[in-house]
Amino acid sequence: MEPQLQLVVEHLHARYAHALDADRLEDWPQFFTENGTYRITTAENEERGLPLPVLYAEGRAMLRDRVASLRHANIYEPQRYRHMLSAVLLEPVDASVVRSIANFSVIRIMQDGDTVIFASGRYLDRIVLPEMQYEERVVVCDSRRFDTLLAIPL
Amino acid sequence: MEPQLQLVVEHLHARYAHALDADRLEDWPQFFTENGTYRITTAENEERGLPLPVLYAEGRAMLRDRVASLRHANIYEPQRYRHMLSAVLLEPVDASVVRSIANFSVIRIMQDGDTVIFASGRYLDRIVLPEMQYEERVVVCDSRRFDTLLAIPL
Amino acid sequence: MEPQLQLVVEHLHARYAHALDADRLEDWPQFFTENGTYRITTAENEERGLPLPVLYAEGRAMLRDRVASLRHANIYEPQRYRHMLSAVLLEPVDASVVRSIANFSVIRIMQDGDTVIFASGRYLDRIVLPEMQYEERVVVCDSRRFDTLLAIPL
Repeated sequence: MEPQLQLVVEHLHARYAHALDADRLEDWPQFFTENGTYRITTAENEERGLPLPVLYAEGRAMLRDRVASLRHANIYEPQRYRHMLSAVLLEPVDASVVRSIANFSVIRIMQDGDTVIFASGRYLDRIVLPEMQYEERVVVCDSRRFDTLLAIPL
Repeated sequence: MEPQLQLVVEHLHARYAHALDADRLEDWPQFFTENGTYRITTAENEERGLPLPVLYAEGRAMLRDRVASLRHANIYEPQRYRHMLSAVLLEPVDASVVRSIANFSVIRIMQDGDTVIFASGRYLDRIVLPEMQYEERVVVCDSRRFDTLLAIPL
Repeated sequence: MEPQLQLVVEHLHARYAHALDADRLEDWPQFFTENGTYRITTAENEERGLPLPVLYAEGRAMLRDRVASLRHANIYEPQRYRHMLSAVLLEPVDASVVRSIANFSVIRIMQDGDTVIFASGRYLDRIVLPEMQYEERVVVCDSRRFDTLLAIPL
């Protein structure tokens, strides 16, 4: 149990959450290493060992493309999102990599005030030190039914 | 990144949340400095630079008045609230002031068991050290449609 | 305010949450001392001093029985749960015991994707050091109407 490392990782997760919730999508790729991977999958697929992700992006260039298409699609952006994180557990791999598992829920607030839990699940991360960037972020969603096409990244 | 400061601020936020959830409203003004300000606004107004808050109180005397009118209005208080906090980011200003930004969601539980997300958003705080009191707490709500008149403070 | 103790307790709560959310129910009794108690009650009962809990188990043997009956009843287990924790406050009792109070919410995700807040409330714990096990965990639920018979532990 390293207090400093725990807080530094939680700090990374917090900055990531605020960037998305504040719609600073252009900052999103910077949270990853140059070749970092981002994958959304479902708990069901994960358990069955099904490799097919809901979404997969490898490297900052692909993440930037993803942002560009979101910007293109979401001209009016009527909804807001609020990320809640909890129960962050660390597992140091070596001096330069730490694994993190964390619970998350994302609240979506529509323009008419309608508020729902848009997504929930676990973040499974590989984080490189001391850069504090995601080498891999796997978003394992509890629900198998959700629409990420028009949504911000999770 | 100062581990001690991070935990002390999270401790303040936690005590604030528990005071409200336990309906200890009379303790609420003590979380603020003597002239501390409390403001509820919406993300929409905040982004447009509209100064009109949903609610504004300056100084403990006004906060106490607010509690008194809540006590007067809510005689039966059938509902409960549960504050969830997440993603606390600090920005030290100087030796005696730290800024904090945090995500929150508030769950409301009605007497018949009906449970909804009552509010979500960000706390934008100015906290004075070493007293650990809010000099300013701005509650930026994601939704523009909500009823705080009969609700506990956020 | 002891930073190390705060993080160690949050670590315990986090491991507990992940064990339940990952359906590792067989690990659940190990979070308690040999004679540890687990009690679910409602905020209403707690305030009125009513001793009747919704659920009560004393000692690991009873906790194991509870898991066995859950396993027997929930053959298909179509639902998932996600625990969110927040606002952990500590109160050291002596060198070998610390009290903890924490807010929680549990999200339930049905197989058809339907997602609701299944439960919310407070964990009131007595934790023994340095084993970091629950000597007592009281789950005070905000709602008085809920179905825990077929649910995982909270």
